[in-house]
Amino acid sequence: MNFKKGALLLLSGPSGAGKSTLIQTILQHQKDVYFSISTTTRPRREGEVDGRDYYFVSKEEFEKDIEAGMFLEWAKVHDNYYGTSLRPVMQALDAGKLVLFDVDVQGFAAIRKSPLSSLLTSVFVTTPSKEELRRRLAARGTDSEEVIAKRLQNALEEMAYMKEYDYILINSDLKKSQEAILSIAKTARLKRSQEEIQEFINYWQAN
Amino acid sequence: MNFKKGALLLLSGPSGAGKSTLIQTILQHQKDVYFSISTTTRPRREGEVDGRDYYFVSKEEFEKDIEAGMFLEWAKVHDNYYGTSLRPVMQALDAGKLVLFDVDVQGFAAIRKSPLSSLLTSVFVTTPSKEELRRRLAARGTDSEEVIAKRLQNALEEMAYMKEYDYILINSDLKKSQEAILSIAKTARLKRSQEEIQEFINYWQAN
Repeated sequence: MNFKKGALLLLSGPSGAGKSTLIQTILQHQKDVYFSISTTTRPRREGEVDGRDYYFVSKEEFEKDIEAGMFLEWAKVHDNYYGTSLRPVMQALDAGKLVLFDVDVQGFAAIRKSPLSSLLTSVFVTTPSKEELRRRLAARGTDSEEVIAKRLQNALEEMAYMKEYDYILINSDLKKSQEAILSIAKTARLKRSQEEIQEFINYWQAN
Repeated sequence: MNFKKGALLLLSGPSGAGKSTLIQTILQHQKDVYFSISTTTRPRREGEVDGRDYYFVSKEEFEKDIEAGMFLEWAKVHDNYYGTSLRPVMQALDAGKLVLFDVDVQGFAAIRKSPLSSLLTSVFVTTPSKEELRRRLAARGTDSEEVIAKRLQNALEEMAYMKEYDYILINSDLKKSQEAILSIAKTARLKRSQEEIQEFINYWQAN
Protein backbone atom coordinates (compact mmCIF):
# COMPACT_ATOMS: atom_id res chain seq x y z
CA MET A 1 0.00 0.00 0.00
CA ASN A 2 1.81 3.08 -1.22
CA PHE A 3 0.22 6.45 -1.93
CA LYS A 4 2.05 8.77 -4.24
CA LYS A 5 -0.53 11.43 -4.83
CA GLY A 6 0.23 15.12 -4.52
CA ALA A 7 -1.22 17.83 -2.34
CA LEU A 8 -2.36 21.45 -2.45
CA LEU A 9 -0.74 24.52 -0.89
CA LEU A 10 -2.67 27.75 -1.17
CA LEU A 11 -1.43 31.26 -0.43
CA SER A 12 -3.66 34.30 0.01
CA GLY A 13 -2.93 37.79 1.24
CA PRO A 14 -2.76 41.40 0.10
CA SER A 15 -0.81 42.15 -3.03
CA GLY A 16 2.50 43.53 -1.80
CA ALA A 17 2.74 41.12 1.16
CA GLY A 18 5.25 38.91 -0.66
CA LYS A 19 3.28 35.88 -1.89
CA SER A 20 5.08 35.73 -5.25
CA THR A 21 8.50 35.77 -3.62
CA LEU A 22 7.49 32.92 -1.29
CA ILE A 23 6.09 30.90 -4.19
CA GLN A 24 9.36 31.44 -6.06
CA THR A 25 11.21 30.23 -2.96
CA ILE A 26 9.29 26.96 -2.99
CA LEU A 27 9.76 26.48 -6.74
CA GLN A 28 13.51 27.06 -6.39
CA HIS A 29 14.10 24.85 -3.36
CA GLN A 30 11.76 21.91 -3.83
CA LYS A 31 11.12 19.36 -6.54
CA ASP A 32 7.75 18.20 -7.84
CA VAL A 33 6.03 21.54 -7.43
CA TYR A 34 3.45 22.89 -9.87
CA PHE A 35 2.29 26.49 -9.74
CA SER A 36 -1.35 26.75 -10.74
CA ILE A 37 -1.92 29.56 -13.24
CA SER A 38 -5.32 31.23 -13.15
CA THR A 39 -7.52 31.72 -16.18
CA THR A 40 -9.08 35.13 -16.75
CA THR A 41 -11.16 37.09 -19.21
CA ARG A 42 -9.69 40.44 -18.22
CA PRO A 43 -7.52 42.12 -20.86
CA ARG A 44 -3.84 41.32 -20.79
CA ARG A 45 -1.75 44.16 -19.35
CA GLU A 46 1.60 45.31 -20.68
CA GLY A 47 4.37 42.95 -19.67
CA GLU A 48 1.99 40.07 -18.87
CA VAL A 49 2.58 36.78 -20.67
CA ASP A 50 -0.19 34.30 -21.57
CA GLY A 51 0.52 31.00 -19.81
CA ARG A 52 2.87 32.62 -17.29
CA ASP A 53 0.82 35.31 -15.55
CA TYR A 54 -2.61 34.04 -16.57
CA TYR A 55 -4.30 32.04 -19.25
CA PHE A 56 -6.14 34.76 -21.14
CA VAL A 57 -9.40 33.53 -22.68
CA SER A 58 -12.57 35.04 -24.05
CA LYS A 59 -15.74 35.45 -22.03
CA GLU A 60 -17.42 32.85 -24.24
CA GLU A 61 -14.72 30.23 -23.64
CA PHE A 62 -14.81 30.90 -19.91
CA GLU A 63 -18.57 30.56 -19.69
CA LYS A 64 -18.49 27.36 -21.74
CA ASP A 65 -15.94 25.90 -19.29
CA ILE A 66 -18.07 26.91 -16.29
CA GLU A 67 -21.00 25.04 -17.85
CA ALA A 68 -18.79 22.00 -18.43
CA GLY A 69 -17.69 21.96 -14.77
CA MET A 70 -14.08 22.52 -15.71
CA PHE A 71 -13.22 24.97 -12.94
CA LEU A 72 -12.02 24.08 -9.46
CA GLU A 73 -13.11 27.58 -8.48
CA TRP A 74 -14.13 30.72 -10.32
CA ALA A 75 -15.47 34.18 -9.56
CA LYS A 76 -16.66 37.21 -11.42
CA VAL A 77 -14.97 40.44 -10.29
CA HIS A 78 -15.99 43.74 -11.91
CA ASP A 79 -17.34 42.08 -15.05
CA ASN A 80 -14.23 39.90 -15.50
CA TYR A 81 -14.01 36.19 -14.77
CA TYR A 82 -11.13 34.63 -12.85
CA GLY A 83 -10.79 30.91 -12.17
CA THR A 84 -8.67 27.80 -11.72
CA SER A 85 -9.02 25.08 -14.33
CA LEU A 86 -9.45 21.65 -12.79
CA ARG A 87 -7.56 19.56 -15.38
CA PRO A 88 -3.94 20.78 -14.90
CA VAL A 89 -4.45 20.59 -11.13
CA MET A 90 -5.64 16.97 -11.32
CA GLN A 91 -2.78 16.05 -13.66
CA ALA A 92 -0.23 17.57 -11.28
CA LEU A 93 -1.83 15.78 -8.31
CA ASP A 94 -1.74 12.45 -10.15
CA ALA A 95 1.95 13.06 -10.88
CA GLY A 96 2.50 13.44 -7.10
CA LYS A 97 3.18 17.15 -7.23
CA LEU A 98 2.57 19.86 -4.69
CA VAL A 99 0.20 22.27 -6.41
CA LEU A 100 0.64 25.93 -5.41
CA PHE A 101 -2.18 28.46 -5.60
CA ASP A 102 -2.06 32.23 -5.30
CA VAL A 103 -5.74 33.10 -4.87
CA ASP A 104 -7.85 35.56 -2.90
CA VAL A 105 -10.12 34.73 0.03
CA GLN A 106 -12.99 33.91 -2.36
CA GLY A 107 -10.84 31.39 -4.23
CA PHE A 108 -9.80 29.87 -0.91
CA ALA A 109 -13.40 29.55 0.24
CA ALA A 110 -14.29 27.74 -2.99
CA ILE A 111 -11.33 25.32 -2.94
CA ARG A 112 -11.99 24.56 0.72
CA LYS A 113 -15.52 23.52 -0.19
CA SER A 114 -14.29 21.31 -3.06
CA PRO A 115 -13.67 17.53 -2.82
CA LEU A 116 -9.92 18.32 -2.77
CA SER A 117 -10.13 20.09 0.59
CA SER A 118 -8.58 17.24 2.55
CA LEU A 119 -5.39 17.69 0.49
CA LEU A 120 -5.31 21.42 1.19
CA THR A 121 -2.97 23.47 3.36
CA SER A 122 -3.70 27.20 3.44
CA VAL A 123 -1.49 30.15 4.36
CA PHE A 124 -2.41 33.81 4.73
CA VAL A 125 0.59 36.06 4.05
CA THR A 126 0.59 39.59 5.38
CA THR A 127 2.90 42.48 6.21
CA PRO A 128 3.56 43.25 9.89
CA SER A 129 1.55 46.48 9.64
CA LYS A 130 -0.66 48.52 7.34
CA GLU A 131 2.04 51.19 7.09
CA GLU A 132 4.53 48.57 5.90
CA LEU A 133 2.11 47.43 3.18
CA ARG A 134 1.63 51.05 2.10
CA ARG A 135 5.43 51.48 1.98
CA ARG A 136 5.93 48.36 -0.17
CA LEU A 137 3.14 49.26 -2.59
CA ALA A 138 4.52 52.79 -2.94
CA ALA A 139 8.04 51.44 -3.51
CA ARG A 140 6.82 49.34 -6.46
CA GLY A 141 5.91 52.60 -8.15
CA THR A 142 3.21 50.95 -10.26
CA ASP A 143 0.10 52.14 -8.42
CA SER A 144 -1.39 55.59 -7.98
CA GLU A 145 -2.14 56.82 -4.48
CA GLU A 146 -5.78 56.13 -5.12
CA VAL A 147 -5.09 52.53 -6.14
CA ILE A 148 -2.86 52.06 -3.08
CA ALA A 149 -5.63 53.34 -0.81
CA LYS A 150 -8.01 50.85 -2.44
CA ARG A 151 -5.52 48.00 -1.98
CA LEU A 152 -5.11 48.84 1.71
CA GLN A 153 -8.87 48.80 2.12
CA ASN A 154 -9.08 45.43 0.31
CA ALA A 155 -6.28 44.07 2.50
CA LEU A 156 -8.19 44.96 5.63
CA GLU A 157 -11.33 43.28 4.29
CA GLU A 158 -9.40 40.12 3.37
CA MET A 159 -7.79 39.97 6.80
CA ALA A 160 -11.22 39.35 8.31
CA TYR A 161 -10.84 35.82 6.88
CA MET A 162 -7.35 35.18 8.28
CA LYS A 163 -8.66 32.90 11.02
CA GLU A 164 -9.95 30.44 8.43
CA TYR A 165 -6.42 29.67 7.19
CA ASP A 166 -4.18 26.93 8.59
CA TYR A 167 -1.23 29.30 8.99
CA ILE A 168 -0.64 33.04 9.18
CA LEU A 169 2.68 34.23 7.86
CA ILE A 170 3.60 37.73 9.01
CA ASN A 171 6.24 38.57 6.45
CA SER A 172 8.60 40.92 8.27
CA ASP A 173 11.88 39.01 7.99
CA LEU A 174 12.18 37.47 4.51
CA LYS A 175 14.65 34.79 5.53
CA LYS A 176 12.43 33.61 8.38
CA SER A 177 9.37 33.69 6.13
CA GLN A 178 11.17 31.60 3.52
CA GLU A 179 12.15 29.07 6.16
CA ALA A 180 8.55 28.94 7.37
CA ILE A 181 7.03 28.48 3.91
CA LEU A 182 9.52 25.72 3.04
CA SER A 183 8.62 23.93 6.26
CA ILE A 184 4.90 24.33 5.54
CA ALA A 185 5.39 23.12 1.94
CA LYS A 186 7.31 20.06 3.07
CA THR A 187 4.66 19.13 5.60
CA ALA A 188 1.79 19.93 3.20
CA ARG A 189 2.88 16.95 1.10
CA LEU A 190 1.91 14.60 3.91
CA LYS A 191 -1.80 15.37 3.47
CA ARG A 192 -3.97 12.54 2.15
CA SER A 193 -7.31 12.60 0.45
CA GLN A 194 -10.43 11.14 2.07
CA GLU A 195 -10.50 8.47 -0.66
CA GLU A 196 -6.90 7.43 0.01
CA ILE A 197 -7.66 7.14 3.72
CA GLN A 198 -10.77 5.04 3.10
CA GLU A 199 -8.82 2.84 0.68
CA PHE A 200 -6.13 2.43 3.32
CA ILE A 201 -8.63 1.49 6.04
CA ASN A 202 -10.10 -1.19 3.75
CA TYR A 203 -6.63 -2.52 2.98
CA TRP A 204 -5.61 -2.45 6.65
CA GLN A 205 -8.63 -4.48 7.72
CA ALA A 206 -8.03 -7.15 5.08
CA ASN A 207 -4.27 -7.59 5.60
CA MET B 1 4.26 42.69 17.21
CA ASN B 2 5.89 39.45 18.17
CA PHE B 3 4.08 36.28 19.19
CA LYS B 4 6.05 33.77 21.13
CA LYS B 5 3.33 31.38 22.20
CA GLY B 6 3.59 27.64 21.80
CA ALA B 7 1.43 25.14 19.99
CA LEU B 8 -0.08 21.67 20.37
CA LEU B 9 0.84 18.46 18.58
CA LEU B 10 -1.36 15.46 19.26
CA LEU B 11 -0.71 11.83 18.34
CA SER B 12 -3.31 9.09 18.37
CA GLY B 13 -3.27 5.55 17.07
CA PRO B 14 -3.29 1.94 18.20
CA SER B 15 -0.86 0.94 20.87
CA GLY B 16 1.94 -0.81 19.02
CA ALA B 17 1.89 1.58 16.06
CA GLY B 18 4.91 3.46 17.34
CA LYS B 19 3.61 6.68 18.89
CA SER B 20 6.03 6.58 21.83
CA THR B 21 9.05 6.17 19.55
CA LEU B 22 7.95 9.12 17.44
CA ILE B 23 7.38 11.26 20.53
CA GLN B 24 10.88 10.33 21.73
CA THR B 25 12.21 11.34 18.32
CA ILE B 26 10.72 14.83 18.67
CA LEU B 27 11.98 15.19 22.25
CA GLN B 28 15.47 14.19 21.18
CA HIS B 29 15.72 16.35 18.07
CA GLN B 30 13.89 19.55 18.95
CA LYS B 31 14.09 22.13 21.70
CA ASP B 32 11.20 23.64 23.63
CA VAL B 33 9.06 20.55 23.61
CA TYR B 34 6.86 19.48 26.53
CA PHE B 35 5.29 16.05 26.67
CA SER B 36 1.92 16.20 28.37
CA ILE B 37 1.51 13.47 30.96
CA SER B 38 -2.01 12.21 31.56
CA THR B 39 -3.61 11.96 34.97
CA THR B 40 -5.41 8.75 35.90
CA THR B 41 -7.19 7.04 38.75
CA ARG B 42 -6.34 3.54 37.55
CA PRO B 43 -3.91 1.59 39.74
CA ARG B 44 -0.24 1.96 38.96
CA ARG B 45 1.20 -1.10 37.16
CA GLU B 46 4.57 -2.64 37.82
CA GLY B 47 7.34 -0.60 36.23
CA GLU B 48 5.22 2.52 35.90
CA VAL B 49 6.51 5.70 37.50
CA ASP B 50 4.31 8.48 38.88
CA GLY B 51 5.01 11.68 36.93
CA ARG B 52 6.60 9.82 34.05
CA ASP B 53 3.95 7.41 32.78
CA TYR B 54 0.98 9.07 34.44
CA TYR B 55 0.09 11.24 37.37
CA PHE B 56 -1.65 8.75 39.62
CA VAL B 57 -4.37 10.33 41.75
CA SER B 58 -7.39 9.18 43.74
CA LYS B 59 -10.88 9.19 42.36
CA GLU B 60 -11.80 11.93 44.82
CA GLU B 61 -8.99 14.21 43.68
CA PHE B 62 -9.88 13.61 40.04
CA GLU B 63 -13.55 14.40 40.56
CA LYS B 64 -12.68 17.54 42.52
CA ASP B 65 -10.52 18.71 39.60
CA ILE B 66 -13.29 17.99 37.08
CA GLU B 67 -15.61 20.18 39.18
CA ALA B 68 -13.00 22.93 39.26
CA GLY B 69 -12.66 22.86 35.44
CA MET B 70 -9.02 21.87 35.68
CA PHE B 71 -9.01 19.36 32.81
CA LEU B 72 -8.41 20.15 29.16
CA GLU B 73 -10.07 16.81 28.47
CA TRP B 74 -11.06 13.78 30.49
CA ALA B 75 -12.93 10.52 30.06
CA LYS B 76 -14.10 7.62 32.18
CA VAL B 77 -13.05 4.24 30.79
CA HIS B 78 -14.10 1.05 32.63
CA ASP B 79 -14.61 2.86 35.94
CA ASN B 80 -11.24 4.63 35.73
CA TYR B 81 -10.73 8.30 34.94
CA TYR B 82 -8.13 9.53 32.46
CA GLY B 83 -7.49 13.18 31.68
CA THR B 84 -5.13 16.02 30.78
CA SER B 85 -4.66 18.74 33.37
CA LEU B 86 -4.97 22.19 31.90
CA ARG B 87 -2.40 24.00 34.04
CA PRO B 88 0.90 22.40 32.88
CA VAL B 89 -0.31 22.68 29.26
CA MET B 90 -1.01 26.42 29.64
CA GLN B 91 2.34 26.97 31.37
CA ALA B 92 4.18 25.18 28.56
CA LEU B 93 2.26 27.17 25.92
CA ASP B 94 3.09 30.45 27.66
CA ALA B 95 6.74 29.42 27.65
CA GLY B 96 6.50 29.02 23.86
CA LYS B 97 6.75 25.24 23.91
CA LEU B 98 5.35 22.65 21.57
CA VAL B 99 3.10 20.50 23.77
CA LEU B 100 2.91 16.83 22.74
CA PHE B 101 -0.10 14.65 23.51
CA ASP B 102 -0.49 10.91 23.24
CA VAL B 103 -4.25 10.48 23.54
CA ASP B 104 -6.99 8.33 22.06
CA VAL B 105 -9.66 9.43 19.62
CA GLN B 106 -11.91 10.55 22.51
CA GLY B 107 -9.15 12.78 23.88
CA PHE B 108 -8.59 14.21 20.41
CA ALA B 109 -12.30 14.97 19.98
CA ALA B 110 -12.32 16.83 23.31
CA ILE B 111 -9.17 18.88 22.65
CA ARG B 112 -10.44 19.76 19.20
CA LYS B 113 -13.56 21.21 20.75
CA SER B 114 -11.54 23.20 23.31
CA PRO B 115 -10.55 26.87 22.90
CA LEU B 116 -7.02 25.66 22.13
CA SER B 117 -8.07 23.96 18.89
CA SER B 118 -6.61 26.64 16.62
CA LEU B 119 -3.16 25.81 18.02
CA LEU B 120 -3.66 22.09 17.39
CA THR B 121 -2.04 19.81 14.82
CA SER B 122 -3.20 16.19 14.94
CA VAL B 123 -1.59 13.00 13.64
CA PHE B 124 -2.98 9.48 13.50
CA VAL B 125 -0.19 6.90 13.62
CA THR B 126 -0.87 3.40 12.35
CA THR B 127 0.86 0.28 11.10
CA PRO B 128 0.71 -0.54 7.36
CA SER B 129 -1.59 -3.52 8.04
CA LYS B 130 -3.52 -5.31 10.77
CA GLU B 131 -1.15 -8.25 10.49
CA GLU B 132 1.82 -5.97 11.16
CA LEU B 133 0.14 -4.59 14.28
CA ARG B 134 -0.52 -8.14 15.48
CA ARG B 135 3.13 -9.00 14.87
CA ARG B 136 4.39 -5.97 16.82
CA LEU B 137 2.04 -6.58 19.74
CA ALA B 138 3.05 -10.25 19.87
CA ALA B 139 6.74 -9.31 19.70
CA ARG B 140 6.40 -7.10 22.80
CA GLY B 141 5.47 -10.23 24.69
CA THR B 142 3.43 -8.33 27.28
CA ASP B 143 -0.08 -9.13 26.10
CA SER B 144 -2.04 -12.38 26.02
CA GLU B 145 -3.60 -13.46 22.74
CA GLU B 146 -6.95 -12.37 24.07
CA VAL B 147 -5.63 -8.90 24.90
CA ILE B 148 -4.02 -8.67 21.45
CA ALA B 149 -7.31 -9.57 19.78
CA LYS B 150 -9.01 -6.85 21.84
CA ARG B 151 -6.34 -4.30 20.85
CA LEU B 152 -6.78 -5.15 17.16
CA GLN B 153 -10.53 -4.65 17.50
CA ASN B 154 -9.96 -1.30 19.26
CA ALA B 155 -7.51 -0.26 16.55
CA LEU B 156 -10.10 -0.86 13.88
CA GLU B 157 -12.69 1.14 15.78
CA GLU B 158 -10.27 4.04 16.27
CA MET B 159 -9.36 4.03 12.59
CA ALA B 160 -12.90 5.07 11.76
CA TYR B 161 -11.85 8.51 13.05
CA MET B 162 -8.65 8.76 10.99
CA LYS B 163 -10.18 11.21 8.53
CA GLU B 164 -10.64 13.77 11.29
CA TYR B 165 -6.88 14.10 11.80
CA ASP B 166 -4.66 16.59 9.97
CA TYR B 167 -2.15 13.89 9.04
CA ILE B 168 -2.05 10.10 8.77
CA LEU B 169 1.30 8.51 9.44
CA ILE B 170 1.56 4.94 8.16
CA ASN B 171 4.55 3.78 10.16
CA SER B 172 6.21 1.18 7.94
CA ASP B 173 9.69 2.69 7.55
CA LEU B 174 10.83 4.14 10.89
CA LYS B 175 13.36 6.54 9.37
CA LYS B 176 10.79 8.01 6.99
CA SER B 177 8.24 8.24 9.80
CA GLN B 178 10.74 10.07 11.99
CA GLU B 179 11.47 12.52 9.19
CA ALA B 180 7.74 13.07 8.68
CA ILE B 181 6.99 13.66 12.37
CA LEU B 182 9.91 16.11 12.71
CA SER B 183 8.61 18.04 9.70
CA ILE B 184 5.09 18.06 11.15
CA ALA B 185 6.41 19.15 14.56
CA LYS B 186 8.42 22.01 13.05
CA THR B 187 5.44 23.25 11.06
CA ALA B 188 3.04 22.77 13.99
CA ARG B 189 4.85 25.58 15.82
CA LEU B 190 3.64 28.06 13.21
CA LYS B 191 0.02 27.71 14.37
CA ARG B 192 -1.49 30.76 16.05
CA SER B 193 -4.43 31.08 18.38
CA GLN B 194 -7.60 32.90 17.38
CA GLU B 195 -6.84 35.52 20.04
CA GLU B 196 -3.36 36.14 18.68
CA ILE B 197 -4.77 36.58 15.18
CA GLN B 198 -7.44 39.02 16.39
CA GLU B 199 -4.80 40.93 18.34
CA PHE B 200 -2.65 41.07 15.23
CA ILE B 201 -5.50 42.34 13.02
CA ASN B 202 -6.18 45.13 15.55
CA TYR B 203 -2.49 46.03 15.61
CA TRP B 204 -2.21 45.91 11.81
CA GLN B 205 -5.12 48.29 11.33
CA ALA B 206 -3.72 50.82 13.78
CA ASN B 207 -0.14 50.83 12.49
